[in-house]
Amino acid sequence: MITINSDRLWKRLMHMATIGATPKGGVCRVALTEEDKMGRDLFVKWCTEIGCTIEIDAIGNIFARRAGKQSQLPAVLIGSHLDSQPTGGKFDGVLGVLAGLEVLETLNDQQILTQHPIEIVSWTNEEGARFAPAMIASGVFSGNFSLEYAYSREDKEGKKLGEELEKIGYNGSTPVGHRPYKATFELHIEQGPILEAKDKNIGIVTGVQGIRWYDLTIQGQETHAGPSPMHLRRDPIRGTIPVLADIYELAEKYSPDARVTIGYLDASPGVRNTVPGQIKISIDIRHPNESSLTSMDEDLHKIIHKADLESKFEYQLTDVWYASPVNFDEGCIEAVRKAAKVLGANSMEMFSGAGHDAVYVSKVAPTSMIFIPCKDGLSHNELESAKKEDVEAGTNVLLHAVLEMAGVFQE
Amino acid sequence: MITINSDRLWKRLMHMATIGATPKGGVCRVALTEEDKMGRDLFVKWCTEIGCTIEIDAIGNIFARRAGKQSQLPAVLIGSHLDSQPTGGKFDGVLGVLAGLEVLETLNDQQILTQHPIEIVSWTNEEGARFAPAMIASGVFSGNFSLEYAYSREDKEGKKLGEELEKIGYNGSTPVGHRPYKATFELHIEQGPILEAKDKNIGIVTGVQGIRWYDLTIQGQETHAGPSPMHLRRDPIRGTIPVLADIYELAEKYSPDARVTIGYLDASPGVRNTVPGQIKISIDIRHPNESSLTSMDEDLHKIIHKADLESKFEYQLTDVWYASPVNFDEGCIEAVRKAAKVLGANSMEMFSGAGHDAVYVSKVAPTSMIFIPCKDGLSHNELESAKKEDVEAGTNVLLHAVLEMAGVFQE
Repeated sequence: MITINSDRLWKRLMHMATIGATPKGGVCRVALTEEDKMGRDLFVKWCTEIGCTIEIDAIGNIFARRAGKQSQLPAVLIGSHLDSQPTGGKFDGVLGVLAGLEVLETLNDQQILTQHPIEIVSWTNEEGARFAPAMIASGVFSGNFSLEYAYSREDKEGKKLGEELEKIGYNGSTPVGHRPYKATFELHIEQGPILEAKDKNIGIVTGVQGIRWYDLTIQGQETHAGPSPMHLRRDPIRGTIPVLADIYELAEKYSPDARVTIGYLDASPGVRNTVPGQIKISIDIRHPNESSLTSMDEDLHKIIHKADLESKFEYQLTDVWYASPVNFDEGCIEAVRKAAKVLGANSMEMFSGAGHDAVYVSKVAPTSMIFIPCKDGLSHNELESAKKEDVEAGTNVLLHAVLEMAGVFQE
Repeated sequence: MITINSDRLWKRLMHMATIGATPKGGVCRVALTEEDKMGRDLFVKWCTEIGCTIEIDAIGNIFARRAGKQSQLPAVLIGSHLDSQPTGGKFDGVLGVLAGLEVLETLNDQQILTQHPIEIVSWTNEEGARFAPAMIASGVFSGNFSLEYAYSREDKEGKKLGEELEKIGYNGSTPVGHRPYKATFELHIEQGPILEAKDKNIGIVTGVQGIRWYDLTIQGQETHAGPSPMHLRRDPIRGTIPVLADIYELAEKYSPDARVTIGYLDASPGVRNTVPGQIKISIDIRHPNESSLTSMDEDLHKIIHKADLESKFEYQLTDVWYASPVNFDEGCIEAVRKAAKVLGANSMEMFSGAGHDAVYVSKVAPTSMIFIPCKDGLSHNELESAKKEDVEAGTNVLLHAVLEMAGVFQE
């Protein structure tokens, strides 16, 4: 049975992690920065060296293609993303891209010709850390966003995605989308603690939690920290404490599968001796069940509406993004299941708690995902860590699932 | 009974407000800018016209002196500052300076000769909006800062206070400090809502609240917003909600005079789909009573220590600054009290919640303050507003308090 070269893959993962390396052992390779460009350049160089042809589309997605016996057949796609969070780790995204490279190089080593072509993809701006929303480029690819919308997204400094893409030279000439695929697979670290807690090293991912994003603004009255008596203040931090508690309480009401996160919280003007006039927060709620997520959304709107009516603050809740729960393609799931079984992997079936490019891609092509554990479930963190043997096991499952779908040509 | 000329004072206040006037009716006359120079020039011109002699010290404080019968006696000082916040109002500081001018001109009108000389002062850079710390020039005057330290302060563009002072030509030749005073008075808008709420138009200010500043860091565990089950998270925002409530509760425990403000609050990394790893907040607590402020400080340390011990977060509380409560001079307070009574003013005794030049001056001379209401308690705001009749009442109280201390010469 053929297997990948684990040392080669690991070496490349560590090499890529030197680009944007942070003091605590993580990576800062935020989308469309100079570091992102360096990561892309290295990936393109490696793909070219093993004989792939490269195409870059107008939103900067990179496709590296290995020919199949029958070039007119739809390809099998493997991939993820190379951008990171500002304080991200070595494996999130990168693993899925470089595992694709390893699969192709293994096929080269073994002189295996597949019936279908195989492509590796690196999607632009998956993290959304710089340009919201996340997964914007796979979103354009699958027709969820227009290219113009994506180009117009701005970072905190008001720089536009389109201009920043052009600046790093990855505004390619290939039109976005309209690439038919036989199957697509994304190998990823779990970014959660479930596999580790259950002592499994392969997650057969059958779907993804639905996600809703919101912005919440709470308007009070900016005033001097000294003279105003407490009872005359409209301090939005103090006023919002019970509302924040209510928001988190949604996670209990819809437990154990619900997730509630306030990732961004800013008090304005943010001056030590001034009672803030306004606070802004982001809210992220998730649930694998569509009707539960809808109920959470309704509950959240009720909480905010009630707070707005009953308090001396003005609350404004804005819907920012919605991704419905996803069920992956049964054929792709079965290919992963079979590969795990053939390899004797210690696997379990599970949902993904995080969004992935695979979610958008699944709208236009048969798709599924493979998870491997990450230490303590940590991700979006410089301490993110995965074991070499799990990386190896996951990539071997990926290899065999891809071979199952691409078909081996035998003379 | 002699009283001031309210129209003349109001006209001068409005005239001064044209220098640096902002579209919303406020003033931008930030320290040591061209506008500040224009405001100073106008003030010096007015003082010269009514026969005062002018001295400017090495930190740019302007002293305008009206001779007394006995020139060897210590003067009575009246004053405040002419600089403003970037979006400041027409009255903060300016009132205290121009009311001094009006007092002297009223004495001229009435041909009153006082035993003690009287001086008006305009202190440099009270606001601290451009050069931190605030009240730096009265701080040098009273020996709290060295002149070298003040000169070395830099604005956001790296320009030094000393050089900017020289540029506008107000680096005078008089040494800073060592001017003995019989009494000093500062008339100021309240910058808070208490007088308005109690329907009073004169505040007899008996002292200034003590202030303690802290930085608090709460360390949790940064992780992805999706995969981590809620019970495995260490989310410092969620974890801190009860602690924030406890901190604000200190204001109730030490009510009605305590103040508790969290002006700065930041979650890091501040990304929508990441559970924050850390939050940082600033805490500002104030109380006019030293022992109460000490108890608040002890309580705060207990709250944080308990949270640190009993939670899954690490709390770090750092002391940043302490200004002890100030009790003004009983003789000066009594002079204001008596003036308010003689004039039949609708007065109350109160503490100041904000810092003022009078705080530093009180270290080296008998000092007190007079407050008048400002609309909605608003200050450091272009909408800052005061009623003409309150300005008149406050300046009459100032006049009579000054006469009480300066003594009228009768042949």
